[in-house]
Amino acid sequence: MNCTILAVGTELLMGQTVNTNAAFLSQELNELGINVLFHITVGDNPHRLDKMLNNALENSDMIITTGGLGPTQDDLTKEIIAKALGRKLHLHRPTYGKLESFFKRLNREMTNNNIKQAYLPDNSIILENNAGTAPGFIIEEREKVIISLPGPPKEMKSIYFDSVKPYLQRKSEYTIKSKLLKFVGIGESSLENVLVDLISNQTNPTLATYAKDGELTLRITAKGNSHEEIDSLINPIVKEVESRLKEYIYSYRGEVLEEVVVNMLLSKNLTLSLAESCTGGLLSSKLTSVSGVSKVFDRGIVTYSNTSKSEELGVRESTLRTYGAVSKETAMEMALGIKRASGTDISLSITGVAGPTGGSPEKPVGLIYIGIATDSSSYVKKLNLTGDRNKIRNYTTIAALNLIRKTIQEEY
Amino acid sequence: MNCTILAVGTELLMGQTVNTNAAFLSQELNELGINVLFHITVGDNPHRLDKMLNNALENSDMIITTGGLGPTQDDLTKEIIAKALGRKLHLHRPTYGKLESFFKRLNREMTNNNIKQAYLPDNSIILENNAGTAPGFIIEEREKVIISLPGPPKEMKSIYFDSVKPYLQRKSEYTIKSKLLKFVGIGESSLENVLVDLISNQTNPTLATYAKDGELTLRITAKGNSHEEIDSLINPIVKEVESRLKEYIYSYRGEVLEEVVVNMLLSKNLTLSLAESCTGGLLSSKLTSVSGVSKVFDRGIVTYSNTSKSEELGVRESTLRTYGAVSKETAMEMALGIKRASGTDISLSITGVAGPTGGSPEKPVGLIYIGIATDSSSYVKKLNLTGDRNKIRNYTTIAALNLIRKTIQEEY
Repeated sequence: MNCTILAVGTELLMGQTVNTNAAFLSQELNELGINVLFHITVGDNPHRLDKMLNNALENSDMIITTGGLGPTQDDLTKEIIAKALGRKLHLHRPTYGKLESFFKRLNREMTNNNIKQAYLPDNSIILENNAGTAPGFIIEEREKVIISLPGPPKEMKSIYFDSVKPYLQRKSEYTIKSKLLKFVGIGESSLENVLVDLISNQTNPTLATYAKDGELTLRITAKGNSHEEIDSLINPIVKEVESRLKEYIYSYRGEVLEEVVVNMLLSKNLTLSLAESCTGGLLSSKLTSVSGVSKVFDRGIVTYSNTSKSEELGVRESTLRTYGAVSKETAMEMALGIKRASGTDISLSITGVAGPTGGSPEKPVGLIYIGIATDSSSYVKKLNLTGDRNKIRNYTTIAALNLIRKTIQEEY
Repeated sequence: MNCTILAVGTELLMGQTVNTNAAFLSQELNELGINVLFHITVGDNPHRLDKMLNNALENSDMIITTGGLGPTQDDLTKEIIAKALGRKLHLHRPTYGKLESFFKRLNREMTNNNIKQAYLPDNSIILENNAGTAPGFIIEEREKVIISLPGPPKEMKSIYFDSVKPYLQRKSEYTIKSKLLKFVGIGESSLENVLVDLISNQTNPTLATYAKDGELTLRITAKGNSHEEIDSLINPIVKEVESRLKEYIYSYRGEVLEEVVVNMLLSKNLTLSLAESCTGGLLSSKLTSVSGVSKVFDRGIVTYSNTSKSEELGVRESTLRTYGAVSKETAMEMALGIKRASGTDISLSITGVAGPTGGSPEKPVGLIYIGIATDSSSYVKKLNLTGDRNKIRNYTTIAALNLIRKTIQEEY
C-alpha cells in the first residue's frame, strides 16, 4: 500500500507554519509498512486543491489530508473531497451534540460557522476529535482510501493514535511493531558504519536511523502474524546491536536523555546539583523540563562572572588567576564547591568557551571542561567541540547528561 | 509570478527530516511578491521526480528544487532536470577546482562521487555554495525558471541570500522591502483584532502576522520603484500601528526578546542576576544564548528545593512556612536575596507551579510570581497561565524578559 500526504492551508504556503504533520505521519506510516510517495501542500484554494486531490487519487492507494476542516470559510477540504467523489455532506448528530455542549461549557455562543464542522460526507467513518472541535473522517471508495484530519498537530496526532492507526492496523494483513533504541556518545555516520550490514541486508526487520539535536535513534521495525513472531524477529537484532554498541545505548523506549537521567536518580534515590558557566542554565533547564525532577534536583548555580565563581562556589582566586576560568582546575573546584554547598550525592560543573567570541589559540571556541563529584570520586572530562554557540552549548549538555548517566551506572 | 517548491529526498518521505526549507523559501518568496502555489516532496526516485517536475513546470512560472545535488548515487535532481529540458551536463571547471582544493585542505581523497558535483547543466547560471560543496544553478527556459539548491538548510540559505534573492530582485519589476515589528504581552488574535482594518484593506503594503513560541511578529511588506517610495508607504503604517500598540512593540528589526534585553543592558551598562525556581534555568539559558551577555549577566541561581531558597537566597523559613514557596512573599525575598548576593543593578526571581503535578485549588498549575528588584524599587507580578509544563515555563520566561525590558525603560 502507498500513500500521498496532502496538506491544506495558505499559512503553509506563506511560510507562517512549518509542515511537521507530514514528517510525523510519514514516520508512522512507514512503521506500518505503508510507502509514502509524495507530500503535497496546497493553499485554501478550491481549484488547486481539487486538482491535487485528483492527482493524488490517480497516483496512490491512500491519501491522508491535514488541515481545512475548521469552522471558517477558508476551510474547504471536506467540501472539495465530497464534490470530487460525488458525495453530499450531512449533519452528523453526535458531532453536533458534542459541539453544542462544548460551547455551553465555555459559555460561548455556537455560531453557524461552528455548526459547519458537524457536516460530514455521506458514508464515511467519523473520527472523533478528543483534542479539539473538528472531527476527521475516512472514506473508502473503490480501491482507494481517503483519510481527512485537522491541521493543528495536537488534534491530528490525537485522532491518529485514537482511530487512524488502529484502522490501518486492522486493514493490514500483517501486524507491525517497532522498537526504538536511543544512542549517545556516537555520531550518526559511525552508528551506520557499525551497523551497515544489518541496515543493508535486512528487509524484515528493517533498520533506520534518525538524528536530531544530538539525539540519535535507531528504529527496528518488523512485521509478522503475531506479537510473538515479531518479537522473535526483533529480539535477535537488538541483541546483535547491543553486542556491538551496548555502551552507547541509553534507552529502549524512545525517551530523551534527561528523562532517563532523572528516572535513574529517582530510582536510586540520588540528589543532584549543578554549577554551569558557558551553558548558562541550559542543562538545568533541560533537567527541570522533566516532571517529577524536584524530588532529586536540589539546585543549580549559573556562575557567569569570575566573582560569582568565587563567591558562590568557593573557587580560589589563585586558581582563576593561574589556570583561568576555562580549565580543568576551575571545573574541579566548581564541582566540589557546589557539592559542598548543596550536600547532594552528585554534583556536576561545566566551564568552557561557547563562542563565537572569547576564544584564543590556547583555549579555542569549543573547549569545554565538565567536572563531576560524588562522595567517592571526582573527575574532569575535556571536550573539543565544533559548531556555533547554540550547537556547542547543546552538545555540552548532552555530554554532561551522559556523564551523569555513566557515573550512576558505575558507582551506584 | 508564481512558484512551486519541489523538495527531493527519501529522508523527507520517511519522516526522518522535517522540510523546513519549504517554509523558509515561502516566507522569502512571499516577501518578494512571488506567489507560492504548491509545496511538493518526492523521494530519490527518477520516475516520480520526473513526473512531479513536469507537473510543476505545467502549473507554475518558477520551480525551486531543494535536495538531490550531493555526491551520492541517490542524488539525481540535476540529472532529471537536465533530461526533462533536453540539456547535457558538463564539467564546470571553477567548481571542480574548488572541490579539489577543498579535499586537499581536509587531506582527504576526492572520489569520483565527489567530482559528480562539478557536472552542471549546459547554459545554466552556476550558484556558488559558500557553505558546502554542491553548487546550485538556475536554468531559464522559455518563460520558465528552474532554480536548484542543495538540501541542507545552511547551504540552501547561504546560496539563497548570496545569489537567488539578488537574482529574483533583479528580475522583479518592483523593489520590495519588509519591516518586521515584534510584539510581546499581547496575543495573536488580539493583535489581529486591533489591526483588522489595516490587514484587510491594504494591498500595498500588505500586513501579515506570525506567531511562534510566544514570539509575535508583524511583517509589513511594500513594493515600489525606489526605496524612498517604499519607505513612504511603510512608514505611515508603522506610525499607525505604533499609535495603537506602541507599548507592546519591542523590536523593529526582528530580534528575539532576549537579544533586545541584553542589548538594553549593554547600552545602559546595567548588570543582571536571576533566581529561578519553576523555570529551572530556562530564563538564564535564553539570556546566555546571546553572545556578549557575559558583560552584563553576573549569575543565576536555580533554587529548586526549599532548603536551597533559604541557603542561597536567604528566604526566611517562616516565609516559606507561612506563605509557601509559590507566593508573592517568597518571590520578593528571592529577588532581594539574589540582589544582595550579587550586587547587580537588576535582580529577577521566578517561582510558580509549572505542572502537570504540584497544583492545588489555592495554587493551581500555571500560578506564577515574578519578582524584580532594582536599587530604587521592588515589585512582584502575578501570572495565571494555561497549557502544559513546557508552555508555562516558556511563557513565564517571556513575561520575565518583558518585565526586565519595561523596568529598564521606566527606571533607567
